[in-house]
Amino acid sequence: MADQNVRPSAGGVPPALSVLRWAEPPEGPAVVLLDQTRLPAEEVELVCADVPALVRAIRTLAVRGAPLLGIAGAYGVALAVARGDDVAMAAELLDRARPTAVNLGYGVRRAVRAYQEAVGKGADAGPAAAAVLAEARALHREDAEASGRMARHGLALLEELLPDGDGHRLLTHCNTGALVSGGEGTAFAVALGAHREGRLRRLWVDETRPLLQGARLTAYEATRNGMPYSLLTDNAAGSLFAAGEVDAVLIGADRIAADGSVANKVGSYPLAVLAKYHHVPFIVVAPTTTVDPGTLDGASIVVEQRPAAEVTEFMSPGAGAVGQEGGGLPVAPEGTAAYNPAFDVTPPELVTAIVTEEGAVSPVTGAGLAALCARSSQVTIS
Amino acid sequence: MADQNVRPSAGGVPPALSVLRWAEPPEGPAVVLLDQTRLPAEEVELVCADVPALVRAIRTLAVRGAPLLGIAGAYGVALAVARGDDVAMAAELLDRARPTAVNLGYGVRRAVRAYQEAVGKGADAGPAAAAVLAEARALHREDAEASGRMARHGLALLEELLPDGDGHRLLTHCNTGALVSGGEGTAFAVALGAHREGRLRRLWVDETRPLLQGARLTAYEATRNGMPYSLLTDNAAGSLFAAGEVDAVLIGADRIAADGSVANKVGSYPLAVLAKYHHVPFIVVAPTTTVDPGTLDGASIVVEQRPAAEVTEFMSPGAGAVGQEGGGLPVAPEGTAAYNPAFDVTPPELVTAIVTEEGAVSPVTGAGLAALCARSSQVTIS
Repeated sequence: MADQNVRPSAGGVPPALSVLRWAEPPEGPAVVLLDQTRLPAEEVELVCADVPALVRAIRTLAVRGAPLLGIAGAYGVALAVARGDDVAMAAELLDRARPTAVNLGYGVRRAVRAYQEAVGKGADAGPAAAAVLAEARALHREDAEASGRMARHGLALLEELLPDGDGHRLLTHCNTGALVSGGEGTAFAVALGAHREGRLRRLWVDETRPLLQGARLTAYEATRNGMPYSLLTDNAAGSLFAAGEVDAVLIGADRIAADGSVANKVGSYPLAVLAKYHHVPFIVVAPTTTVDPGTLDGASIVVEQRPAAEVTEFMSPGAGAVGQEGGGLPVAPEGTAAYNPAFDVTPPELVTAIVTEEGAVSPVTGAGLAALCARSSQVTIS
Repeated sequence: MADQNVRPSAGGVPPALSVLRWAEPPEGPAVVLLDQTRLPAEEVELVCADVPALVRAIRTLAVRGAPLLGIAGAYGVALAVARGDDVAMAAELLDRARPTAVNLGYGVRRAVRAYQEAVGKGADAGPAAAAVLAEARALHREDAEASGRMARHGLALLEELLPDGDGHRLLTHCNTGALVSGGEGTAFAVALGAHREGRLRRLWVDETRPLLQGARLTAYEATRNGMPYSLLTDNAAGSLFAAGEVDAVLIGADRIAADGSVANKVGSYPLAVLAKYHHVPFIVVAPTTTVDPGTLDGASIVVEQRPAAEVTEFMSPGAGAVGQEGGGLPVAPEGTAAYNPAFDVTPPELVTAIVTEEGAVSPVTGAGLAALCARSSQVTIS
């Protein structure tokens, strides 16, 4: 069961975005989300009072972004335990809600392990629920801290790669800010850090078809933070590269294979090829929890195929119909087939650096990545 | 003054599209266009009874596509002469309606020259109007013939480059079919030819943001002709290349500089870089009238910048508001700035071949192009 709270829009200096919170009774138990399908038109909270409601919110992208999906997964398990649901079934449902983002499964498994440990120690329902909730909150807090550390490492890398000039012109794709994180995000957090230090000349924001996360969400976050930015269609990035208007590309990741192959929002790979061709650094920013040692290489990454209607119809941001067949305005003839992968895979040789909360690896190698992950204080779950 | 006629949708074997026609009194004198901003939702004719109406139709892309703009420009001059307007002023207005497509100016200048020759020979108003109309009709007919010849040369080139396999998987961008031409188009005509010969395995149709000419117009033409096609967001093309699913890229051109640099719909250049990286042929199909010897190189091509609203708002195909500020559904926060070039420029070293009605040039060199143009029976206007 999902319910909605409407919140007034923020003005002036932006307060931190409350993108996901745990609600205790009487409001809860519930996972309360900022409904990202309604942005930027409205800031509406979606109250997920059971696991199926949360799974729907994940599938329709009301909540999205690799790190935040991990947090949502952990709170989802906490919700199941608090409600007295079958925990294994709830975990399975959550884990399968989206196939590519590794963090979702990570958050779910970490919460399940906390539950099993509590039960193993003889905890009753109440203490077990408290233990799982504590684990979800720990993951939430760790992610916020990781965000700040990624921003610092990313900024240092930018200054190393781009020491000259009057500020960076950074191109980004999809949304990687506070809306995907317990903190200020991944790639976007680096750009925001540059802005705060007076080193951001321009943020080029790819609109990110088909669901326009760049136009709707990154532009929203850039506006909130007073950053200098311009929106562009994804296919206009080529002209910017050709004109020498891009100093670096900064993107997030949904899954990083053991060899350093990066699955991220569709459109990332063409940017990597353009960046290579124009000798522009292509930088991936993601927490070590996004690295999946169990996925050996790019070819092993399962890429989610999304409904054709996302391409053949226009889904209005306020309509709440994103991801559901038939809810939008048709833009193509009836019956048009569409190829609609949600992600693409960039091989390590096209990635200049991967920046994590433990530092950057460049050039990107499996051994370098493994060393960073080994330094991570994040709990490892195989 | 523009008026509208609604025509019933075509069914079964498609009749030739009537995309542009001259109307005599009492319906005219007028240039009657199939309003391309209304497709695929409706097939509506737009009656342009004076030059300002035609200029508006060109600016809002009701009529578009390099060869068709040339034809529209020539009929526009015929319309001015038939109405007794100031011909020089009408020609100037038409020529400036869009800056990048060289064919528009070509058609206008050719019609103006026919007018001047008729007047120079002492023709009165009636015979002068007849002479200009005859010239516009000649250009229209020549373009239809050129289309058929481009298709034949393009098909031969495809068979040479891709002799093996069970049919071609061709990727195209924007719209280059009957909607841009007196005949069956440029790049699309080649794909259609392959389809008729049983050699088209799949046409990959880039949706072509921001105005979705691929989703709206190419998908419409592919559907009409029963071609196997799939629509994709422009940024998903990278995944197709990486998966080895693209045998060749076929695009049109809006202006080809003397050195072989190709200005075409924004998004063409990234495809050229992807094609180069994946060793896939990148083929430009355009009549010799698209070659502009007066533009020396790519850097000299003026690229039209279009309104931000095309990116920050969603323009419904049926709304007729395309290109006009404020007519669409907002997808980005209010006040968002957008970078919205209508075209990009691909340098000759990324173009495998340029196919014209006189044959193909490969590798693309200025000398090779000049030789093709010299063979052309098209009237040369400097």
